[in-house]
Amino acid sequence: MRALAIDLGGSHANCGIVEERAILANDAIAVDCAEGLRPLLPLIVDTFDQLAKRTKLSLADCKGVAVGFPGLVDARVGRVLSTNAKYEDAPKVDFAAWGREALGLPLRIENDARMALLGECYAGAAMGVTEVVMMTLGTGIGGVAMIEGRLLRGKHAQAGCLGGHFPILFTGRCCTCGAIGCAEAEAAGWSLPLILREWPGASGSTLSKYQKVGFKELFEEAAAGDEVALAVRDRCLSVWCADAIALVHAYDPEVIVIGGGVMKSAANIIPIIQSHVRKHAWTPWGKVQVRAAELGNDAALLGAVPLLSEKLD
Amino acid sequence: MRALAIDLGGSHANCGIVEERAILANDAIAVDCAEGLRPLLPLIVDTFDQLAKRTKLSLADCKGVAVGFPGLVDARVGRVLSTNAKYEDAPKVDFAAWGREALGLPLRIENDARMALLGECYAGAAMGVTEVVMMTLGTGIGGVAMIEGRLLRGKHAQAGCLGGHFPILFTGRCCTCGAIGCAEAEAAGWSLPLILREWPGASGSTLSKYQKVGFKELFEEAAAGDEVALAVRDRCLSVWCADAIALVHAYDPEVIVIGGGVMKSAANIIPIIQSHVRKHAWTPWGKVQVRAAELGNDAALLGAVPLLSEKLD
Repeated sequence: MRALAIDLGGSHANCGIVEERAILANDAIAVDCAEGLRPLLPLIVDTFDQLAKRTKLSLADCKGVAVGFPGLVDARVGRVLSTNAKYEDAPKVDFAAWGREALGLPLRIENDARMALLGECYAGAAMGVTEVVMMTLGTGIGGVAMIEGRLLRGKHAQAGCLGGHFPILFTGRCCTCGAIGCAEAEAAGWSLPLILREWPGASGSTLSKYQKVGFKELFEEAAAGDEVALAVRDRCLSVWCADAIALVHAYDPEVIVIGGGVMKSAANIIPIIQSHVRKHAWTPWGKVQVRAAELGNDAALLGAVPLLSEKLD
Repeated sequence: MRALAIDLGGSHANCGIVEERAILANDAIAVDCAEGLRPLLPLIVDTFDQLAKRTKLSLADCKGVAVGFPGLVDARVGRVLSTNAKYEDAPKVDFAAWGREALGLPLRIENDARMALLGECYAGAAMGVTEVVMMTLGTGIGGVAMIEGRLLRGKHAQAGCLGGHFPILFTGRCCTCGAIGCAEAEAAGWSLPLILREWPGASGSTLSKYQKVGFKELFEEAAAGDEVALAVRDRCLSVWCADAIALVHAYDPEVIVIGGGVMKSAANIIPIIQSHVRKHAWTPWGKVQVRAAELGNDAALLGAVPLLSEKLD
C-alpha cells in the first residue's frame, strides 16, 4: 500500500509519501502550532504536490492519508477530542472532508504517539510483537499501549494513551493535564526547569550557566560530575522506571519500546529501565524486554500503513 | 441461568447457588488458605450438596460452576497463573477436571476482583455501564477494568487487574509484588502497620494502645481527633485518590466502583475520591462517577452468571 502520512509536531509538520515499510520521500514544514492548524493545511497540500513531482508519483495512486496529531484523538470518528496547547483549532477541523476535498483521498487521524507505536510495531523495534507499550521521553511523556495486536482505545479513545499521566508521586507537582505528580510533571522536558528551580543547591550547580536546561544539558553536566545534575538525572531515571512498572502492570506487555528526544542524550537509559523492570515488575509469565525505538522521527510516518489498514470498530 | 459460585477468600470460601441476579442460598466455609486448596475441594462439594438439599434444587440443573480466586488467573485456559501467599497449590489444580468429576458441571475460574466487577456490573453499582473500573480497598488493593463491556485481560491475563500495583510513590516501600511504592504498599491493610511503625510521633498516638491497627481503628481514632491517626488517614486517602487517577488515565472508565473492607469504616471515602477525580482527572468527554460498591461480599458470587455467559476468545 502507498499512502500519504502527516506527523504534526510542535515545531514541524513532517509530510511523507510512504509505501509499506519505506518512506519514499518526505519534507518537514516549520510551523507555529500556536497559530492553529487551518493556516497550515494549504501548505501541507503544496508539500505533497512537490513530493509527488519530485518522486514522479501520482497522489491519486495513494490509498489514503494518515495524520498523527499531538492530542487526544478518536480515530473511529476521525476527530481531535482535546488539545494540549498545540493546534487549538483542531477539534473544529473536519479532517475527512479536508482529505477528500484537498487531496482526493480517504483520511484517518490518530494520536501521534499511537501512530509511532504502530510504526515501531510495523517496521521498527517491535516488529512481530503484539503486546507492546511505547514510552516517549521528551518535552512530555507519551505512554501508549497495544494489546493482542490492537491499539487500546476505550470508549472515549483515552485508554492506553495517557501513560505519561500516571501519578508516580502522589504528593508531587501539578501537571498540565490537571492531575498531581504525573510522571510527566516529575521528569519531562517541560517540568525539568521547575524541578531545578526548587532543588537545594541548584544555584551552585554547573547547570546554572544555562539559560534553559534540557535533558541534553542535564546528562552532560551529570557526566561531568556535577552533583545536582547527577541527583536530578537519577531522580528522572527513577521516575521513568516507576512509570515503566505502571505501564507493565496496567497493560501486560512483552516489550517496552522507549523513544523520544531524551534518547539522544543518554546511552544508558535502556539498561537502567531494563534492569528495574526485570527486578521489580510482577510478570510471572516471564520478563518484559525494554528496547530502544528504532525509527526516530520516522515512526509516526511509518504508522500510516497499519493505521489505514486497521479494521476500526 | 442457574449456577454454582465459589468465592475463595483468605479466611472463608463462600459457596452459593445463584440464579441470574439472586443468590438462592449460600454458606461460607472457614478455611486456612495456607494449607492450600486441595483439602478444601471435598468440603466445597459437601457444602453444595447441603445447599442443594436445603433449597430442594438439583446441582444437575445448574449450567456451570464459577470460581473466584485471589491471584492471577487466566479464565481462557482455566488456570491459576500466580498466587500471592494464598492457596499456593492452586496453579497445579486442574479446575475443569474437578468441576466435571466432582460436580458434573463445566467450570470457569477468574480472578476474584474481576468476578466482583462482573457482579457489580450485572447486579450492583454499575448496572448497565460498560466502562468501569473497580477498586477494592482492604488487606490489599484490587484494581480491575472493564472496557467496552468486556474485562480487559491481555495475553498473560495480567492487563486490567493489577490496579493496586501502580507505583504512586516512586521512592516508596517495597510491595509484596516486588515493585516499589505501589498504592497497596502505601495504603492497604497489610502495609498500614509498617507505615505507622515509621511515623514520627506514633508512639504518643492513641493508636499505640492497639496490638494491631487496621483501618477500623485508624478511622475511629482519627474521628476522635488523634493527630497521628488523622495524618495517616489523610495520607491513605491521598494514595487512593492518586490510584483512582491512574486507573482513569489507564482505562478510560465512566464509573469507578469502590468496595472492600475499608468502606465499612468510613462514610466519607467516596465523596473525597469523587471530588479529587472530578478536579484532577483528564477526561474532556465529561466527569467520571465514583460509586460505592453495592453487593459487598456477594459481588463475586453474582459475577458467576456473567462469567459463565461470557464469550471467551
